Amino acid sequence: MLKVRRVCNLEIIKARNMGFCFGVKRAVNKADRAIKEIKNNGIYMLGEIIHNPQVIKEFTEKGVKIVNEVTQVPYNAYLISRAHGISLHEKKIAESRNIKLIDTTCPYVKKLHEITKLLRKENYHIAIFGDLDHPEIKSLLSYNTNNTAVIQSIDEIKDFLLAGNKKVALVSQTTKNTNDFNKIAIKMIDKVEELRIFRTICNSTTLRQSAVSELAKKVDIIIVVGGLNSANTARLAQISRKIGVKTYHIESENNIEEAWFKGIQKIGVTSGASTPDYVTESVIRRIKKIPQ
Amino acid sequence: MLKVRRVCNLEIIKARNMGFCFGVKRAVNKADRAIKEIKNNGIYMLGEIIHNPQVIKEFTEKGVKIVNEVTQVPYNAYLISRAHGISLHEKKIAESRNIKLIDTTCPYVKKLHEITKLLRKENYHIAIFGDLDHPEIKSLLSYNTNNTAVIQSIDEIKDFLLAGNKKVALVSQTTKNTNDFNKIAIKMIDKVEELRIFRTICNSTTLRQSAVSELAKKVDIIIVVGGLNSANTARLAQISRKIGVKTYHIESENNIEEAWFKGIQKIGVTSGASTPDYVTESVIRRIKKIPQ
Repeated sequence: MLKVRRVCNLEIIKARNMGFCFGVKRAVNKADRAIKEIKNNGIYMLGEIIHNPQVIKEFTEKGVKIVNEVTQVPYNAYLISRAHGISLHEKKIAESRNIKLIDTTCPYVKKLHEITKLLRKENYHIAIFGDLDHPEIKSLLSYNTNNTAVIQSIDEIKDFLLAGNKKVALVSQTTKNTNDFNKIAIKMIDKVEELRIFRTICNSTTLRQSAVSELAKKVDIIIVVGGLNSANTARLAQISRKIGVKTYHIESENNIEEAWFKGIQKIGVTSGASTPDYVTESVIRRIKKIPQ
Repeated sequence: MLKVRRVCNLEIIKARNMGFCFGVKRAVNKADRAIKEIKNNGIYMLGEIIHNPQVIKEFTEKGVKIVNEVTQVPYNAYLISRAHGISLHEKKIAESRNIKLIDTTCPYVKKLHEITKLLRKENYHIAIFGDLDHPEIKSLLSYNTNNTAVIQSIDEIKDFLLAGNKKVALVSQTTKNTNDFNKIAIKMIDKVEELRIFRTICNSTTLRQSAVSELAKKVDIIIVVGGLNSANTARLAQISRKIGVKTYHIESENNIEEAWFKGIQKIGVTSGASTPDYVTESVIRRIKKIPQ
């Protein structure tokens, strides 16, 4: 825990682990390098490379065009894919249009792909703890859906187990909550003959979640900074709220309302794995200026 | 639950599942068939085919000689091995003496051997929940001890996890307690990257354990019938005691003391997977004769 500064009665405490993770840093750097090297206007981005509005704005300012479908990318152009992975369908269209792919898929997501591929080969019935509409899961399912079920919450385990499969594997979207994952695993233990559990939740996720849990016990409110469509950021806010602390999930300092801080002494700040540090620092600077 | 008969105030209730399991029946029948076919005096038995004094007595009455070491068996003789499995070392000595082996190893124990073999081939660090001095575990370890640890109780998990292995598998002696096994699995879930759990506790064990749990909640005392050196029988007594019911583990009706039944109304009876029905029936007949 890093004490930042005491202004009047306000004390701002930053989470021990927060901000850009390895996979996000790698993706942004890879895309940046590609833009510098290519130096032409034919660079496209498939959806959001990471779920953060400021990062996306920066890329569009550098001339990158954001598209939602590969079919919107001209033949022979360059295409930066998401850190969450690209689907098989998208990859095939890109190939058919001779599009040059700058693949920024996070290595941990790639590892998850490899694990599910292996599990399918070995005839496991696979339960993926994840969100059906998240690009990571969409890309994962695009390669094969045989014997695979997405478990969105612990309540869905019952239906999965009803199928009576004996050889079962459990994996997770890399940014899910580790406690929820453990609960699901525990529910499955005595229901199947073989249960193979891969902890595919990445370490950065686990560290950021533990840090916000720790922080929430010490402060009066928590400000979570990051894209509203960022799953891992939303999860940090969820964890903090579950502990019972008033929590605000904001994208930038512009979302801050002074009324939130009335009578408040200790403010916790954290940010998602896709939130640049400068965005969080602007938020902290803004909070410090709030009149007491 | 089978109500047997009410004599005076005494009510005897038998566990829903009890007595000889599939593996024991198979082993005893296989040995019996071999004795009939061979019809000579050169039949030996390596230790106890199953852990029950009456069954062993029957075999010795049929002329089978019990030995503790394969080296005690003459060249060219016949040797009946245990239902718990034979060790690699014993097998090799038997071969070198041209001893004809009647292998009565339980198919579920054999399956456990196959699973650990596969796990070793795939470089798992294996935790076996079992008793170091049980013949099943001794036979299992004799084939290979590389990357294998026997976990005798939940407290030993900590040391196993300290090694920091990331690819871990958990299996169990076929006759261990399922609840304890689940607890060990739960302890491991969030400590390793990959955890592969095989429920190698056989179904007969699970059914007998559930039945005695159910029974213990409905009676004043429980009589567990079976060999004192029978692990699965001892476990039934353990479970019953843990629930808080006065429990007696006996080998035959001769061990019964009338004082146990003073002021008692409901008596639960169960027996281990290696206890012949006629032994349990003798116990029940003896209880019925106790003066009220």
